[in-house]
Amino acid sequence: MLEHDAIVRVRYAETDRMGVAYHSNFLIWFEIGRVEMLRSMGVRYREMEDADDCNIVVVEVHCQYKKSAVYDDVLRIRTRMTEVRKRTVRFAYQVLRDPSGELLATGETAHVVCGRDGRPKSLPEKYRALFAAAEPAGQPDQGSTSPR
Amino acid sequence: MLEHDAIVRVRYAETDRMGVAYHSNFLIWFEIGRVEMLRSMGVRYREMEDADDCNIVVVEVHCQYKKSAVYDDVLRIRTRMTEVRKRTVRFAYQVLRDPSGELLATGETAHVVCGRDGRPKSLPEKYRALFAAAEPAGQPDQGSTSPR
Amino acid sequence: MLEHDAIVRVRYAETDRMGVAYHSNFLIWFEIGRVEMLRSMGVRYREMEDADDCNIVVVEVHCQYKKSAVYDDVLRIRTRMTEVRKRTVRFAYQVLRDPSGELLATGETAHVVCGRDGRPKSLPEKYRALFAAAEPAGQPDQGSTSPR
Amino acid sequence: MLEHDAIVRVRYAETDRMGVAYHSNFLIWFEIGRVEMLRSMGVRYREMEDADDCNIVVVEVHCQYKKSAVYDDVLRIRTRMTEVRKRTVRFAYQVLRDPSGELLATGETAHVVCGRDGRPKSLPEKYRALFAAAEPAGQPDQGSTSPR
Repeated sequence: MLEHDAIVRVRYAETDRMGVAYHSNFLIWFEIGRVEMLRSMGVRYREMEDADDCNIVVVEVHCQYKKSAVYDDVLRIRTRMTEVRKRTVRFAYQVLRDPSGELLATGETAHVVCGRDGRPKSLPEKYRALFAAAEPAGQPDQGSTSPR
Repeated sequence: MLEHDAIVRVRYAETDRMGVAYHSNFLIWFEIGRVEMLRSMGVRYREMEDADDCNIVVVEVHCQYKKSAVYDDVLRIRTRMTEVRKRTVRFAYQVLRDPSGELLATGETAHVVCGRDGRPKSLPEKYRALFAAAEPAGQPDQGSTSPR
Repeated sequence: MLEHDAIVRVRYAETDRMGVAYHSNFLIWFEIGRVEMLRSMGVRYREMEDADDCNIVVVEVHCQYKKSAVYDDVLRIRTRMTEVRKRTVRFAYQVLRDPSGELLATGETAHVVCGRDGRPKSLPEKYRALFAAAEPAGQPDQGSTSPR
Repeated sequence: MLEHDAIVRVRYAETDRMGVAYHSNFLIWFEIGRVEMLRSMGVRYREMEDADDCNIVVVEVHCQYKKSAVYDDVLRIRTRMTEVRKRTVRFAYQVLRDPSGELLATGETAHVVCGRDGRPKSLPEKYRALFAAAEPAGQPDQGSTSPR
């Protein structure tokens, strides 16, 4: 199972008056985790959108905050692809503080593959094969025979 | 049970290259929903933080996206307080497009009451009494006898 | 000369660890000032982009910060259109704290009218006539005979 | 004269419906340019704020946009400290697209050194000496005898 670590540093603009990173920024960091994981697999998400008309649209987000991130902290966004199906993809995340490794947050996102027109479509085969290798079971969704 | 509607308009800065509001903005709108609901109850959240050292810290967020919000849309953030306990509060949200009433997203947030020092503390009695009236059952948490 | 006031309230997400509104947010508020000024003139900027292929692209921004805006402050974004030419428009702004009227910031923006393709184009006549009435001198740009 | 290059990649959240990076993000990238320049000089800005009670508050921003930055572009934020005085500092910036080197924007910021209480104060001597070496003329401000 592929797991990928992306590094971000907390920006001043991301802090709030409590002195910590505002909670919605974790969703932006999750996105960076996804995109950098894809890049590590040889997929540039911009090309997926522009050349293949494939948008990995967020349909659900869940985030649990354990500890605060503060300004200038170096964060490790640990990303896993937890499910790949014909038209949907799921990711799970851990946000860790570097270098201590403290766990700051965990999260999951669910996505539907859509065209530029906003309509769901099947993930092109070249991506399904590639993503399947990153999934926990290493098996792509088989359509109607899928257990879920 | 108190339900409160706050209105926001989608800003240009909140849109993304897909032409829709970027998904993390819904968390910011949820916050506006909470704060305006409190204001409607006579509580200015800034004063809660500054005068009473009460921060309603987000510890969990869940959001399900149904339809896209687009630039300049008028959104109705419908907020309910779903649970009030000694040290925790929960809210639920619906984001509706005005004037059609289409449901764009639903969400929930869980919060812990913390002091400026980041340590959990009990919600001051004046707020508990007030918030309890907004809860579904209209009953404040009873501490150890709470069913949950 | 038309002057328009738009009202925004400082969001929690807009504050930073210094306890004040992060400075880049003023540019977002300037945009709200412009768009609401246009709306008061009967122009919905979204329609300008979508129906008339007219993007009022920012090419220059200047902002001077006098006093801090803090969380939950009500701000008055006072906007004037200071120049309208064939392909360019300029705006000036004041950000005032309500209800005291304290001046928090002043700013200016310069814009070029562009199509969806990113290429400069002339502002359609219907907008030029309308915008000219909002300009200080009340006179639209005359092309090559313009004094500037 | 010290010049420092920091690298950022355009995030999805930073794009807008025109398909380009929203203009206010350049101010956030300028801040990254400043902070990484300081880090390259051995100064961690977080420590300046926390340990030395020195906030480099933005009092003026100017930005000229030449070309658009698009999603996933790698940007080079080229930063120079253009003036160091007792209580004020100025920076200049160029934003270049990598690897082509196209100039996307130029900017300047002016800052006043303030304590946590928001009141102007003198830059501690250790920073003045260090910053002076980064200034064009390599000479720190001499107070009233300064030519500017």
